[in-house]
Amino acid sequence: RGNCDVQCCDRPKNTNVRISLPAVCFVWQIAMIILFGIFIRYNEESDAHWIEHKTSNNISSNIENDFYFRYPSFQDVHVMIFVGFGFLMTFLKRYSFGAVGFNFLIAGFGLQWALLMQGWFHSLDPMDGKIKIGVESMINADFCVASCLIAYGAVLGKVSPVQLMVMTLFGVTLYAVEEYIILSLIHARDAGGSMVIHTFGAYYGLSISWMLYRPNLDQSKHRIGSVYHSDVFAMIGTLFLWMFWPSFNSAISDHGDGQHRAAINTYLSLAATVLTSIAISSLSQKTGKLDMVHIQNATLAGGVAVGTAAEFMLMPYGSLIVGFCCGIISTLGYIYITPFMEKYLKIHDTCGIHNLHAMPGVIGGIVGAITAAAASKGVYGTEGLANTFDFMGKWKDMMPTQQGGHQAAGLCVALCFGIGGGIIVGCILRLPIWGDAPDNSCFDDDIYWELPEDEENNPPTVEYNNHMRNKAV
Amino acid sequence: RGNCDVQCCDRPKNTNVRISLPAVCFVWQIAMIILFGIFIRYNEESDAHWIEHKTSNNISSNIENDFYFRYPSFQDVHVMIFVGFGFLMTFLKRYSFGAVGFNFLIAGFGLQWALLMQGWFHSLDPMDGKIKIGVESMINADFCVASCLIAYGAVLGKVSPVQLMVMTLFGVTLYAVEEYIILSLIHARDAGGSMVIHTFGAYYGLSISWMLYRPNLDQSKHRIGSVYHSDVFAMIGTLFLWMFWPSFNSAISDHGDGQHRAAINTYLSLAATVLTSIAISSLSQKTGKLDMVHIQNATLAGGVAVGTAAEFMLMPYGSLIVGFCCGIISTLGYIYITPFMEKYLKIHDTCGIHNLHAMPGVIGGIVGAITAAAASKGVYGTEGLANTFDFMGKWKDMMPTQQGGHQAAGLCVALCFGIGGGIIVGCILRLPIWGDAPDNSCFDDDIYWELPEDEENNPPTVEYNNHMRNKAV
Amino acid sequence: RGNCDVQCCDRPKNTNVRISLPAVCFVWQIAMIILFGIFIRYNEESDAHWIEHKTSNNISSNIENDFYFRYPSFQDVHVMIFVGFGFLMTFLKRYSFGAVGFNFLIAGFGLQWALLMQGWFHSLDPMDGKIKIGVESMINADFCVASCLIAYGAVLGKVSPVQLMVMTLFGVTLYAVEEYIILSLIHARDAGGSMVIHTFGAYYGLSISWMLYRPNLDQSKHRIGSVYHSDVFAMIGTLFLWMFWPSFNSAISDHGDGQHRAAINTYLSLAATVLTSIAISSLSQKTGKLDMVHIQNATLAGGVAVGTAAEFMLMPYGSLIVGFCCGIISTLGYIYITPFMEKYLKIHDTCGIHNLHAMPGVIGGIVGAITAAAASKGVYGTEGLANTFDFMGKWKDMMPTQQGGHQAAGLCVALCFGIGGGIIVGCILRLPIWGDAPDNSCFDDDIYWELPEDEENNPPTVEYNNHMRNKAV
Repeated sequence: RGNCDVQCCDRPKNTNVRISLPAVCFVWQIAMIILFGIFIRYNEESDAHWIEHKTSNNISSNIENDFYFRYPSFQDVHVMIFVGFGFLMTFLKRYSFGAVGFNFLIAGFGLQWALLMQGWFHSLDPMDGKIKIGVESMINADFCVASCLIAYGAVLGKVSPVQLMVMTLFGVTLYAVEEYIILSLIHARDAGGSMVIHTFGAYYGLSISWMLYRPNLDQSKHRIGSVYHSDVFAMIGTLFLWMFWPSFNSAISDHGDGQHRAAINTYLSLAATVLTSIAISSLSQKTGKLDMVHIQNATLAGGVAVGTAAEFMLMPYGSLIVGFCCGIISTLGYIYITPFMEKYLKIHDTCGIHNLHAMPGVIGGIVGAITAAAASKGVYGTEGLANTFDFMGKWKDMMPTQQGGHQAAGLCVALCFGIGGGIIVGCILRLPIWGDAPDNSCFDDDIYWELPEDEENNPPTVEYNNHMRNKAV
Repeated sequence: RGNCDVQCCDRPKNTNVRISLPAVCFVWQIAMIILFGIFIRYNEESDAHWIEHKTSNNISSNIENDFYFRYPSFQDVHVMIFVGFGFLMTFLKRYSFGAVGFNFLIAGFGLQWALLMQGWFHSLDPMDGKIKIGVESMINADFCVASCLIAYGAVLGKVSPVQLMVMTLFGVTLYAVEEYIILSLIHARDAGGSMVIHTFGAYYGLSISWMLYRPNLDQSKHRIGSVYHSDVFAMIGTLFLWMFWPSFNSAISDHGDGQHRAAINTYLSLAATVLTSIAISSLSQKTGKLDMVHIQNATLAGGVAVGTAAEFMLMPYGSLIVGFCCGIISTLGYIYITPFMEKYLKIHDTCGIHNLHAMPGVIGGIVGAITAAAASKGVYGTEGLANTFDFMGKWKDMMPTQQGGHQAAGLCVALCFGIGGGIIVGCILRLPIWGDAPDNSCFDDDIYWELPEDEENNPPTVEYNNHMRNKAV
Repeated sequence: RGNCDVQCCDRPKNTNVRISLPAVCFVWQIAMIILFGIFIRYNEESDAHWIEHKTSNNISSNIENDFYFRYPSFQDVHVMIFVGFGFLMTFLKRYSFGAVGFNFLIAGFGLQWALLMQGWFHSLDPMDGKIKIGVESMINADFCVASCLIAYGAVLGKVSPVQLMVMTLFGVTLYAVEEYIILSLIHARDAGGSMVIHTFGAYYGLSISWMLYRPNLDQSKHRIGSVYHSDVFAMIGTLFLWMFWPSFNSAISDHGDGQHRAAINTYLSLAATVLTSIAISSLSQKTGKLDMVHIQNATLAGGVAVGTAAEFMLMPYGSLIVGFCCGIISTLGYIYITPFMEKYLKIHDTCGIHNLHAMPGVIGGIVGAITAAAASKGVYGTEGLANTFDFMGKWKDMMPTQQGGHQAAGLCVALCFGIGGGIIVGCILRLPIWGDAPDNSCFDDDIYWELPEDEENNPPTVEYNNHMRNKAV
């Protein structure tokens, strides 16, 4: 008897999503169309009136359109969202379809809802009550979606696509609110989203995973693991995240030196993380062998941790130090903290987002607060300081030390929203109506996907192979 | 006896392309060199005289060079052509080499021939009779190649590389002519090529596939299918197409708001398509399971359908509606129309290009015509209207409603060229000299590729495994 | 008995890198932090003082920041380094982790060391003794790393990660010196690095491989080969290298026409290479079948060979000719020269870098010399000539023919540094302290990586399968 077909599960679960999934998709997509019709219009840089706007604002050239400042970064971020996050999660031997496919689904929905939610808070035109969108809105929508995809990493393989849609709906909503509080009300800076995206997203996901804890998940234990080629697929995700992280952290920072500096800092931080991740990975094994889990994940921690401070004058060596520390902490997290959390805290974290996003995100928030508090006119220049920290309008008398406090406050808000929101949404997701898999069928694409006939990847293949053999010989 | 080695085939086909393939490659490449020598030069923005051109034209900065407006989009389009189309077709269990390798071959040839053909029609300098090329020429060449790669999708696995080269030679030629008629003579607008690229390319491919219909193709039926990892490879293609489609549709639209708006519209349309494709895919299966074929293909239909109208003031909600409809239609096409076409119309469409390119392309043409006809000075502004629709020179008195008619005429031209051209080229490809595979060896890389010894992927592995076993034990 | 467990190896090698690898990573990373702290600062375009710099230098817009000229190209180069080189080497059936993982490690380290080494030679600010970095420094660091990754291709599967780190340390150092000599002292131009990157890197790697020659490598012969899916993975690397090579060759060439022309020339050269590589590959097999090794590698030779001359007025047909020849030469190299070198010269070249980088690199140097020598004011314009060849300052009276000589001298320097440096570093790497694998365990990830339990990819699977079967049935 194959080790797959365990009979006993508490109650027979219904994983049929034939009604619920199409219903959710259709209803929400139609709602999006209606809300977009009511609220969303092009901004002055993407509207056909741009040619008149240009003349009346003395803009000398089309190249001054924000599109040319940000579109290349947008495309890099876009690749991170869909290929980066999607393929990073393909490492499981039998959940690659779910990883890349559901990632696609929730990103496709999330970005629409994010345009609306973020628009209401940030770019509502008081003249006509419309949200005006442009390339920066698309980047921000992708950022918002990133936080939900991070959360997905914690529950990968254990939830249904309908649960993921619900999780995304609430995740985007919470994100837009906490982002508004942190960036606009508190006036914290967070260009690369260490706090707003990573800390929030990771604790949101971990709290949900805690609420959805499955005590009998060891019935699916044999499927929590990779095969040789699934690990190579996951490296596609890792590398596209790693390579494009400088674009992520610089995508919405200030034109000119802001974007330039954010890219350099992130580039350096990530390079340092690679070395320390590999060092700790090798140290942790008896014979110094490397573990792909660490290479795939911990090497990215430096990009997370430098998110807030990337646009500040963190200095090249500062970036290296941040990356150095995060590579160590993140890899140690995979070795010690993830098993601890599962055993003692009842939090199962499939992709280890606590090590890749939660801890580095918090570190990033702290680094940002310190760097902001330590800013001085000597290092930034008078204009540069005002420009970098946006000390303008009602914030024009703010001091760097105050800014440091505001940054720390922002981090707390992100933590609260992540944990609180996750617990509430986790409660909702415990309702027995969402079609999630039974404990013995987690991490298995067979529940939600038509699978190709494929002897090699069905672990209990003996009966099948014998069957084929009899037909063939 | 394995189910692979069917003995009977009508006539023993000669699949040896050792003479014909190198001959075609060499002769055509040498012809390209000669023609490039005679005709092709750098344009003023890529010539070393740029520095003088800049002075004499009062261009204030190097950043005004078209290179900086379009090169990032060009690179995205380039990725779509080679990785996007190439990997999208790797889904077949035993034809991944042919998918990505022949895609590479025909794109490499096609872009050279396209530079010449399009150059003769569009950028011949009357002063010296030379074609002047720059970054926009490279984008247009890649666009032209895209139409041939779409056509390849219909005949994937059933033709020889020599046939593909012939198909590309004629495809590029026909493309250049229809593009000239549609864009220059008829003055239709088609920034993203719904008509010029997708409608033409798809009907060209489908007509060829019809002419090359193989009644006994069921001898290769067991190879028309995926394995687990080949489906993940195909998702690489899907995602790079999906992510970079905003660049595709905006690559050659107007500087400034044109490119900006085209990117936004495409981004939104594609997002909506993801949800409706997944909804219909789930609805179509008894237990609501998703089908990878739909996820890989139908999710892209929104990008095709918004191609023509992307640069118009389609409005964000308009883009969502287009994507919404196309996700539904395209997925239903995979479920109902493809089997119908094969059974009753004798058109075998390996990749389902009818659902991904033909129908959405026609829809895109219609959407473009309607959007153009509905354009008004209120929405676009006086200058914006003239600018967006290029109502200049001899077209300066054109009305939007007229433009709508011209758009519709353009769609008809694309259809005629696709179907007519495909039938003629299909006749040529039926000649028994091209080295195509017999009916029982379609979709098999073994015909044209040296394959690695690789037990896992040879379906009838029993004899081989036994052999290995005897050696091993 | 499986053919894997060969018992006899000359001396039992210790492949435990648990001390040496972490030690090297930590010590070098800490050294980097200290040196960065002492030496490296932001340049005026990435410093917060940019806003003041802009005012004082009459720069009208942020878009004039070099970031916007080069960042898209930088990101493309970055993808080539990490995904391109990394995945190109995944073709081996059991060394994909080592290919992509060690590539990641040495690139992550190399780019930091390169920023320092190149900074000392090129961008040391005499005012404060600091190296000032910006986006161009990052591109140059990636370029420098490329030469070490090329060298890795020759020794892939035969060295330990510690050896690779040592090889990279010296490789980057040598690179910085030869680059300084070639570009600054000799005043050769080499935008795409045919000489500086490819010739140097390839001969460096080949010399090391010669010094590390393993007479009994045939004990690992069964692992030098691909499986079906590893070949598809390698195509990801090939295509990203191929597609982004225009960005590689144009990344640091002159703003405006220089970048524009370099991209066009590379695009064309690569297209021609595809056709001739495929032609020769087909010709070389009895039945005209194509060999994936050629498609994966030889198709890239045109990009290498056009590196030096890409920014010159090589003319579109000139680029095609270069690509045409290199496709032939490189493919013939794989067929005839690689086996010859292994048999008679005792140089084992795992990835065939002699055919992909060494020969095309030398050709590129020669093409560059000829093109430079043939330059004239008629073709370039007076200003264009001075601009393209940088005939300014102390070089303002230089003639194109002289420049041709200087180019040739540059090529010789690259060759000497590659061969000489490689021999010396090869001696160092022969010390028996680096943890390299025994001859019968080369090309095997099992030495340095924790591998997933994965029946399908362990060639002698019979015992394992039987074991599973007994448990399962």
